Amino acid sequence: MTDTDAEVDLSRRLADAMYANDRTCQSLGITLDEVGPGRAVLRMTLSDTMVNGIGTAHGGYLFLLADAAFAYACNTHGTVTVAQSASVVFLAPAAPGDELVAHAVERTRSGRSGIYDVTVRGNGGQIIAEFRGHSMMLPGRRLIPDA
Amino acid sequence: MTDTDAEVDLSRRLADAMYANDRTCQSLGITLDEVGPGRAVLRMTLSDTMVNGIGTAHGGYLFLLADAAFAYACNTHGTVTVAQSASVVFLAPAAPGDELVAHAVERTRSGRSGIYDVTVRGNGGQIIAEFRGHSMMLPGRRLIPDA
Amino acid sequence: MTDTDAEVDLSRRLADAMYANDRTCQSLGITLDEVGPGRAVLRMTLSDTMVNGIGTAHGGYLFLLADAAFAYACNTHGTVTVAQSASVVFLAPAAPGDELVAHAVERTRSGRSGIYDVTVRGNGGQIIAEFRGHSMMLPGRRLIPDA
Amino acid sequence: MTDTDAEVDLSRRLADAMYANDRTCQSLGITLDEVGPGRAVLRMTLSDTMVNGIGTAHGGYLFLLADAAFAYACNTHGTVTVAQSASVVFLAPAAPGDELVAHAVERTRSGRSGIYDVTVRGNGGQIIAEFRGHSMMLPGRRLIPDA
Repeated sequence: MTDTDAEVDLSRRLADAMYANDRTCQSLGITLDEVGPGRAVLRMTLSDTMVNGIGTAHGGYLFLLADAAFAYACNTHGTVTVAQSASVVFLAPAAPGDELVAHAVERTRSGRSGIYDVTVRGNGGQIIAEFRGHSMMLPGRRLIPDA
Repeated sequence: MTDTDAEVDLSRRLADAMYANDRTCQSLGITLDEVGPGRAVLRMTLSDTMVNGIGTAHGGYLFLLADAAFAYACNTHGTVTVAQSASVVFLAPAAPGDELVAHAVERTRSGRSGIYDVTVRGNGGQIIAEFRGHSMMLPGRRLIPDA
Repeated sequence: MTDTDAEVDLSRRLADAMYANDRTCQSLGITLDEVGPGRAVLRMTLSDTMVNGIGTAHGGYLFLLADAAFAYACNTHGTVTVAQSASVVFLAPAAPGDELVAHAVERTRSGRSGIYDVTVRGNGGQIIAEFRGHSMMLPGRRLIPDA
Repeated sequence: MTDTDAEVDLSRRLADAMYANDRTCQSLGITLDEVGPGRAVLRMTLSDTMVNGIGTAHGGYLFLLADAAFAYACNTHGTVTVAQSASVVFLAPAAPGDELVAHAVERTRSGRSGIYDVTVRGNGGQIIAEFRGHSMMLPGRRLIPDA
């Protein structure tokens, strides 16, 4: 399936509206590289304050980046959509200074329920984590009034 | 089972050693309220910069707090232990200013593998999220040389 | 909390009504040892036809037993409740002839949503698998008309 | 990436060797439609004895079919590989008589660890369940001696 120009344009407007309020992504320097119907690409550079007690990147921040990509991807259809559950597998450690990229894609969507897969890659493209999120639409709540 | 004084003392020494390096918990104001063999209680107040694009606390920070509690709980036995996977169910939204408490307990441990359950509660004790982590010990790596 | 006699009695009536229709449990020889508000204990002996391609008990049957215990536990409140998602960690292999026991307990329940933890133990009490299920009530559907 | 003829041929030999011992798939009438490096397609018709206590197909059998597809897909590389954990989201109910098809694909593999996604579809292609499995290779154990 090819996305229509209207769908791509709507995705971008919705994502921009979210990002304007998204104090988490703003404060952590997470950028929104791409967005389209059911998909999003986010980027974050690991800082010195993202280290855990054993000296590697905190899994919480790896999850957070994936979860943020999931949130942008599942909110590209206009109705406010929230995470109801998620799971993550950590495949390789990451370190301060690494630039991580999270690719989120919609796997399936039916009724109010959706499943999104997010791959987090590190420097050189190595897979750091695989995330899956299960979303739930909140009927009647639009992200932006006219979309 | 009752923990021995020696086990409780070891847990505390290991947790303190981790916390001294844990830039994530330090920078987010996460405190370690309690620790014992296979368990830990951590606390965090949600700040204004922990809000997502739809105005509630970012799920990434709820996960991060649970994941941190999991990390302290699974590292109370002396050998360095890392998360290999985790899952989370989000049960209620949280907001800036809320003080969250995460209770982590060891559910089972056999060989190098362990399972830890973490409940995150908000103001008034309401359950915000339920987390389960699957840990893996790294044989031969001690968290502190003599413990 | 102590369950009232009325709650225990209702749990039993609901479980018996389910079991009468439960062709899966009947055909596999799964028995319902105990049931109470938010909990259930089920038992199954692994047969020769429950072996996978590498000679151990098929993970599908280990999950099935846990999932069945989850279903009985989450349906003890009267409203028809279904699984919306589940996760399982396999901790030790099992073999034909082993008698497995699954203990399901309600971890939390709020609104229509519930979380149930199920531990599957083998001969001698060894933990074979840890399961967590996320349930959803179907409002307005009663399991038995007058309960 | 295109699979080589040698890889496809090896996958088929390994799957046939597994299937010859797989009493579960044999007894439930599960057939192996396709297999290739990191992937497998299995098929099962739901029988009257696969019904749960509320009258729909038992989630345990939906999981079992997905788990079997995962097992064939992750064992196409020669070394014996087992499931260490799995999660499933149930998206639509199924009923006796429905023919289900499970497509398993390798999402990532590094070191001994792999992640496989399985989609279970029902009559008409509707998605019934989405499954993700996390596998672990058992070093030094070959599925067939010379492969």
